[in-house]
Amino acid sequence: MDLWFSEGHTPNVRLSIKVDKQLYSAQSEFQRIDVFESEEFGRFLTLDGFMMLTEKDEFIYHEMITHVPMAVHPNPKKVLIIGAGDGGVVRELVQYQAVEHIDLVEIDEMVIEAAKKYLPQTASKLDDPRVHIHIEDGLKHVRFCENEYDIIIVDSTDPFGPGEGLFTREFYGSCYKALKEDGIMVNQHESPFYDEDVAAMQRAHQRIIECFPISRVYQAHIPTYPSGHWLFGFASKKYHPVKDMSASVWKSNNIPTKYYNSNLHKGAFYLPNYVQKLLTEVEHKGDK
Amino acid sequence: MDLWFSEGHTPNVRLSIKVDKQLYSAQSEFQRIDVFESEEFGRFLTLDGFMMLTEKDEFIYHEMITHVPMAVHPNPKKVLIIGAGDGGVVRELVQYQAVEHIDLVEIDEMVIEAAKKYLPQTASKLDDPRVHIHIEDGLKHVRFCENEYDIIIVDSTDPFGPGEGLFTREFYGSCYKALKEDGIMVNQHESPFYDEDVAAMQRAHQRIIECFPISRVYQAHIPTYPSGHWLFGFASKKYHPVKDMSASVWKSNNIPTKYYNSNLHKGAFYLPNYVQKLLTEVEHKGDK
Repeated sequence: MDLWFSEGHTPNVRLSIKVDKQLYSAQSEFQRIDVFESEEFGRFLTLDGFMMLTEKDEFIYHEMITHVPMAVHPNPKKVLIIGAGDGGVVRELVQYQAVEHIDLVEIDEMVIEAAKKYLPQTASKLDDPRVHIHIEDGLKHVRFCENEYDIIIVDSTDPFGPGEGLFTREFYGSCYKALKEDGIMVNQHESPFYDEDVAAMQRAHQRIIECFPISRVYQAHIPTYPSGHWLFGFASKKYHPVKDMSASVWKSNNIPTKYYNSNLHKGAFYLPNYVQKLLTEVEHKGDK
Repeated sequence: MDLWFSEGHTPNVRLSIKVDKQLYSAQSEFQRIDVFESEEFGRFLTLDGFMMLTEKDEFIYHEMITHVPMAVHPNPKKVLIIGAGDGGVVRELVQYQAVEHIDLVEIDEMVIEAAKKYLPQTASKLDDPRVHIHIEDGLKHVRFCENEYDIIIVDSTDPFGPGEGLFTREFYGSCYKALKEDGIMVNQHESPFYDEDVAAMQRAHQRIIECFPISRVYQAHIPTYPSGHWLFGFASKKYHPVKDMSASVWKSNNIPTKYYNSNLHKGAFYLPNYVQKLLTEVEHKGDK
């Protein structure tokens, strides 16, 4: 049988993956959810036809969105995760003894159910007693929080459909308010390569720098996302992502990683000139 | 019209690019050569159906294979380029006043002719008076060189077909001999992500560490190559790629770049754990 999943990265570029079989397909209140089995990538999850994660490379995304802020904050006790119903961020977070309380706010309960059933690799720690799952719109949840979290991780989908509200100025402002005085927010920040992604990336960056005194962008190689060059935003009230990073604190946690390490943490913030230029354009626009 | 170029990154993964038209197609003594025009990537060159370069992202490959060794060697006067008939490496190299002599050894004259006619963006500097083009097998050329070059840049195709000889131990040994006592060799080093590429990458690394006292691997984001995560090898008789890098010498050359900068130079050597592990496996094997 010749069954292929194919995603348009732009109208002119497609990445196609040979599929063994479709394990799950459902239409929730918010989106279409599919899980496939493939030889190359193991199982993979798509929402509205867009690649969310594959078992082969999800470790890159989940390690980079989690361990970068965790290696900077000196005492992260309470963490808020927005989105991330697949459980990948939780799996990384629960490895830290310092973390006492995790609020996971996912708008779509069916994503969590599908992950628990079909994606044990990421969903395995959703039952950890420190994890509190809230089926709710992330935008609404943070609106009522104040001075509560050490770290907020925004593991959103793309800035259209159910994830749209998580790229607004209102949302980033609420996250600022929801963080303690030395809090850190990290978000998935789209890609710098294709024009379609660049516009979303610049918009997100502009709104974040309007809300946070410290705002930097870092990168990772994620082969199954458009262009493979993916960005994350690091926004903070106090800590600098590189100068305040502690390699010794990271090492003392003794967490096994396949992608992240302390040198790579630094290197991830050393962006190519063309990416830096896209960010600087927005920063100067913000100055006016 | 709906015309797509499609490349299998593995038997189970394909990247497809919408094509406006085919500008050139020929079968040389060595390989099939095609040039296409596309909306997303501008013109692009394929050899035997494999992507060599696109106008949209070739700057990443050419800057990274050229400026990394050039920012380390304190006085690079004579440079050998193997392959690179498209002219991209030459375009970057001729910006250095220090460079007095460039030997470009390309096995396939028809690649150079196609590039001059259809790819002016990369081929524009092939007529620089310092450039000496030799239509010859790179393996044969270096066999007879001794203590001659400051830098050798191996811009090979993949390790099968006409590029196969450029991944052999004999070739790397000849490069060592062809370099002066403080010479540097850089090569395109395949990708760490898909099994097919990993095998070639590990083989190349093992052979290079057998020939050179200093051997490191660095990475770049190249969206149109398989997985987008591409590696380069830095092999040297004397200089360390990061400790001996001079940001001030680089800056004094005042070369405009879209990808490369001195911080990124360092960051490119900070590899993910899983890539480091693939390299270490080979290094330990070499110890036995």
